[in-house]
Amino acid sequence: MIIVMKPHAPQEAVNQVTSLIKSHGLETHLSQGHQVTIIGVVGDKNKLCCDNIQLLPYVDKLIPVTESYKLSNKKFHPEPTRIRVKDLEIGPDTLTVMAGPCAVESEEQLMTVARAVKKAGAQILRGGAYKPRTSPYSFQGLEEEGLKYMAQAGEETGLATICEVISAQSMEAAVKYVDMIQIGARNMQNFQLLREAGRAGLPVMLKRGLSATIDEWLNAAEYIISEGNPNVILCERGIRTYETATRNTLDISAVPVIKSKSHLPIFVDPSHASGVQAYVSPLAKAAVACGADGLMIEVHNDPEHALSDGPQSLTFRIFDELMQDLGKYAALAERKMA
Amino acid sequence: MIIVMKPHAPQEAVNQVTSLIKSHGLETHLSQGHQVTIIGVVGDKNKLCCDNIQLLPYVDKLIPVTESYKLSNKKFHPEPTRIRVKDLEIGPDTLTVMAGPCAVESEEQLMTVARAVKKAGAQILRGGAYKPRTSPYSFQGLEEEGLKYMAQAGEETGLATICEVISAQSMEAAVKYVDMIQIGARNMQNFQLLREAGRAGLPVMLKRGLSATIDEWLNAAEYIISEGNPNVILCERGIRTYETATRNTLDISAVPVIKSKSHLPIFVDPSHASGVQAYVSPLAKAAVACGADGLMIEVHNDPEHALSDGPQSLTFRIFDELMQDLGKYAALAERKMA
Amino acid sequence: MIIVMKPHAPQEAVNQVTSLIKSHGLETHLSQGHQVTIIGVVGDKNKLCCDNIQLLPYVDKLIPVTESYKLSNKKFHPEPTRIRVKDLEIGPDTLTVMAGPCAVESEEQLMTVARAVKKAGAQILRGGAYKPRTSPYSFQGLEEEGLKYMAQAGEETGLATICEVISAQSMEAAVKYVDMIQIGARNMQNFQLLREAGRAGLPVMLKRGLSATIDEWLNAAEYIISEGNPNVILCERGIRTYETATRNTLDISAVPVIKSKSHLPIFVDPSHASGVQAYVSPLAKAAVACGADGLMIEVHNDPEHALSDGPQSLTFRIFDELMQDLGKYAALAERKMA
Amino acid sequence: MIIVMKPHAPQEAVNQVTSLIKSHGLETHLSQGHQVTIIGVVGDKNKLCCDNIQLLPYVDKLIPVTESYKLSNKKFHPEPTRIRVKDLEIGPDTLTVMAGPCAVESEEQLMTVARAVKKAGAQILRGGAYKPRTSPYSFQGLEEEGLKYMAQAGEETGLATICEVISAQSMEAAVKYVDMIQIGARNMQNFQLLREAGRAGLPVMLKRGLSATIDEWLNAAEYIISEGNPNVILCERGIRTYETATRNTLDISAVPVIKSKSHLPIFVDPSHASGVQAYVSPLAKAAVACGADGLMIEVHNDPEHALSDGPQSLTFRIFDELMQDLGKYAALAERKMA
Repeated sequence: MIIVMKPHAPQEAVNQVTSLIKSHGLETHLSQGHQVTIIGVVGDKNKLCCDNIQLLPYVDKLIPVTESYKLSNKKFHPEPTRIRVKDLEIGPDTLTVMAGPCAVESEEQLMTVARAVKKAGAQILRGGAYKPRTSPYSFQGLEEEGLKYMAQAGEETGLATICEVISAQSMEAAVKYVDMIQIGARNMQNFQLLREAGRAGLPVMLKRGLSATIDEWLNAAEYIISEGNPNVILCERGIRTYETATRNTLDISAVPVIKSKSHLPIFVDPSHASGVQAYVSPLAKAAVACGADGLMIEVHNDPEHALSDGPQSLTFRIFDELMQDLGKYAALAERKMA
Repeated sequence: MIIVMKPHAPQEAVNQVTSLIKSHGLETHLSQGHQVTIIGVVGDKNKLCCDNIQLLPYVDKLIPVTESYKLSNKKFHPEPTRIRVKDLEIGPDTLTVMAGPCAVESEEQLMTVARAVKKAGAQILRGGAYKPRTSPYSFQGLEEEGLKYMAQAGEETGLATICEVISAQSMEAAVKYVDMIQIGARNMQNFQLLREAGRAGLPVMLKRGLSATIDEWLNAAEYIISEGNPNVILCERGIRTYETATRNTLDISAVPVIKSKSHLPIFVDPSHASGVQAYVSPLAKAAVACGADGLMIEVHNDPEHALSDGPQSLTFRIFDELMQDLGKYAALAERKMA
Repeated sequence: MIIVMKPHAPQEAVNQVTSLIKSHGLETHLSQGHQVTIIGVVGDKNKLCCDNIQLLPYVDKLIPVTESYKLSNKKFHPEPTRIRVKDLEIGPDTLTVMAGPCAVESEEQLMTVARAVKKAGAQILRGGAYKPRTSPYSFQGLEEEGLKYMAQAGEETGLATICEVISAQSMEAAVKYVDMIQIGARNMQNFQLLREAGRAGLPVMLKRGLSATIDEWLNAAEYIISEGNPNVILCERGIRTYETATRNTLDISAVPVIKSKSHLPIFVDPSHASGVQAYVSPLAKAAVACGADGLMIEVHNDPEHALSDGPQSLTFRIFDELMQDLGKYAALAERKMA
Repeated sequence: MIIVMKPHAPQEAVNQVTSLIKSHGLETHLSQGHQVTIIGVVGDKNKLCCDNIQLLPYVDKLIPVTESYKLSNKKFHPEPTRIRVKDLEIGPDTLTVMAGPCAVESEEQLMTVARAVKKAGAQILRGGAYKPRTSPYSFQGLEEEGLKYMAQAGEETGLATICEVISAQSMEAAVKYVDMIQIGARNMQNFQLLREAGRAGLPVMLKRGLSATIDEWLNAAEYIISEGNPNVILCERGIRTYETATRNTLDISAVPVIKSKSHLPIFVDPSHASGVQAYVSPLAKAAVACGADGLMIEVHNDPEHALSDGPQSLTFRIFDELMQDLGKYAALAERKMA
């Protein structure tokens, strides 16, 4: 934390700031420039509600120097995290593809999709049993029944499984049936849910919030890890911008940014990012070329009749072609597709 | 719902679209322009997962015509909603001010602030007992103990009280102690919590999400109302933009926009919107000049030592001056300050 | 400028940074924290292409401490600027209203509008002769003919006049006919044009760019002032965000932010900000309540047939009512409406 | 253009709308839904200032159906454009790399960089002679002297050359020395300059504005093409969002979106998009994987001492490695790197 004083701040104003800091057991370090005085705070700034200092007279601004997240920070944990799910290893040496329908609609639908994505080469089956929908009048998911179908599909195909949870209750149900849990974009700062995910005992995929900064995202991961669960995967799924040609704007740069700031694996979801079937494959390839550790892709047996997210779902044929292409991109990136 | 076909779409492509629509029990209406054919869908579009149509050949785009929210829509409920809390009426004839600390820190702190805001003319006491914080290492609130102090402060001063809830559990506790509940920006699309707020029996203030569109916000209100609770207040608290001079960007236009689209009361929170003490008073006046039904303002006995949001909290003296000014603005707007 | 080193940066990395800085004739100031070393740069940073330092090994980030704009900076010029145009004084004691059609369409149209806004109490006539339009197929303005009508209207009514310029050529023409020139949002970083505006000899209204930060805006003003023209008015006209209910999002907080960072007058244009006739009056009042020094408002004799921006133009009747209301808001703000 | 009426609009309100439309020589087509009446406008909407209709009573909203750009629209020109510069063909079968320093700093610097990027395999030399800079106190370019060095470097190395122009004057100079001209992001809606670029006789690279929608971008291209110059290349260079981890947010989805909406070639500039040397290579690969026709990359002989954009410039070694990698990605995408 650095405090910049306004030009010509009198000595007593500087003293007032240093006194407040010292009263919290921290030390200060003064630097006198030509125009301005700068005060560095030395010590554990969590002891201090630092932001309040900006209310003192002649204080121009506060500048944080260190990140508030520690456990998800590459500076303190330089080695990339590797996560084991069933017989898979998610991490720097592999490219992992999660695929499946946006929503589990029926046993038959899910089994059909599960077999198709398994055959195409996906390693993890996705499928929503609890759907957060903008309107209360839209389909909200099969809930526990959907989870049971997921378990069944996992067993039959050998795919690992992942489901989104949206509350304590759905988390409690999900851990009984699936191999990984997902926190969706809308719940990225549902801190209660994050803490519960930290105690759930399963790997967690944490999607980036619709307008979350990368800092906020890593702080959200910190909530999960600080409860004892180090197995967190980050998933970029598009952020909200003014552009309307796509559902969201895929922040592809988040991939190298996360690689430079954190040791956690980073996935990309081109389906939610774009919202358009025709854009999913090019964006999936871009994600792999950029260094992503994995992908989450929506695939449906009959997108035209899907109960949710049809327009962005791939048909089996398109997904199959994409997986063949991805194999080549994974090879260039020196990653194994299990 | 209108479907725009691409130029030179063959008749069979048009037929395919109309067949799909009719198969859901809806009717179509064709309009043949010079370049493009347009297909209108007549009937209750909830019967149809309309979005999927964009996957059909030669479909250029889909255009929604009617809003998905009904109960919060002014088109169907032209009269402005009036909400009673204790002896207050919130609505088009009054200006209601909620004030208090960001977080309840202690009994003494809360009582001191409650007496001061009451004396200055506020009608409702705010105070956070459950704090959603970006970092897990920040102060998280006194929880039920904080709620008890709120009840006590309400009783002693006669102020109505409002607290944010962040989970089913905190909601259950809050309804026992306070007069209104608040859903914070980060939970605006925590649909489970919205449903529970719809069944909680108390008026609900619904803050706009950090990057929520006005449409999504009204759909979130729809979740609450559709569970049987019509007493919803909307609160604009700043949206996320690229500008960093303020903590968020106060979307002041949301006030007249909501007035034109919905019958629900609209409040403004200039404290969270700006994040800067010096900007709170000008923005509060702007909100009233613009037609807001009320304000939510953070006030603290000692902002420099506040455990949360100190930099944007008003001192008693500043709040007192602001309330005197607001009286004049309320008079211009022909609103009573109870 | 402050340089933050990564944790455990070796001494030689610190030395490399300080050497580079010293080689530019600047001094350094070291501060050793528990985790990180911080290096302050003392002296005129314009001597140094500071940003390059971030390429050196173990450099974590650079943090600018002082603003790059000087002449428009309140820190160095605390007194608010007052600008004289004809017999008007624009500044902290007055509320100035610029009104008129988006585009000058004909002599008759302009004269009709000029008389009406004069009668309603406006002090300055706006009217576009050169129109920057998104599509090349839209009406582009009457150019020099339009300027002549502006001069004529100014003479007849006594109103001061302002016109947007979009190029060196249009600037050359405009200075012959009008009292003030306007740089539009799309040209806020047309630096060539800014320099020319600095040499034009007339007061300049500088609109904020569609997605300009306040810092960039003040730097754009710096281009004008540094060429010798101190008479710059800033005009907030809405910024681009994800929200589509309004044409742009009026950043009303820009008013108090500019008041705290600069001595230049700040106006608000609620017409372009909202794009909707019904929202203009509430936003105009909000701007005055918030501390704006003036307003720019589009008024048209026949909005339904306007060649540009009809939907946001006020009719004479609405403008007249608004001006009467603004008188009361100006009185509360202790400003004279000339 | 479709006009949606409010629920229960009386017949006379519908008649008023249809009369206004017919008075402009256009036809209407009515569609009566359960709740709302919809009026389609048939004919060339440029005859009508359509937007004004939203001022009529009971009009709910207007919905544009066709794009305003025609010449850059794929619907009317399905074949991808191929552009010849010197002996190069830019378009769907090739991958073209433009590389060079942000700013031309001296003859020696430019020649050194030109030889290095030529050797690494780039086909076009970039180099700024006129620099639009946020602050008037930053280095502004060598102007015509810089152009001369560009011509000389092109001659010696055989590279084609491209320079940014910022005004009529710089355009006039540039066409004498270089093979292509560039319109920068800040001038994307400098319509005067766009028209001049349309008459300049050289291929034009049009960068996307900092917050331009794809629609606005294609309309800007329309300005150039409608003046007779069909040789326009679009260049995505990052858009402004709330995220600060990168200088801008690379909108990688713009690549497939442009491919679906326009026939013009689309390039990506990962240097300006990210602002960080370490992110340039991953983003460059992503762009190619996603379907980009080319790249623009900043390369400098000594980034640490660059006068502009040092932090995002690649060293010769990094650029060389990147070019080798890009060869493999181009092969996967079935594109020749000339």
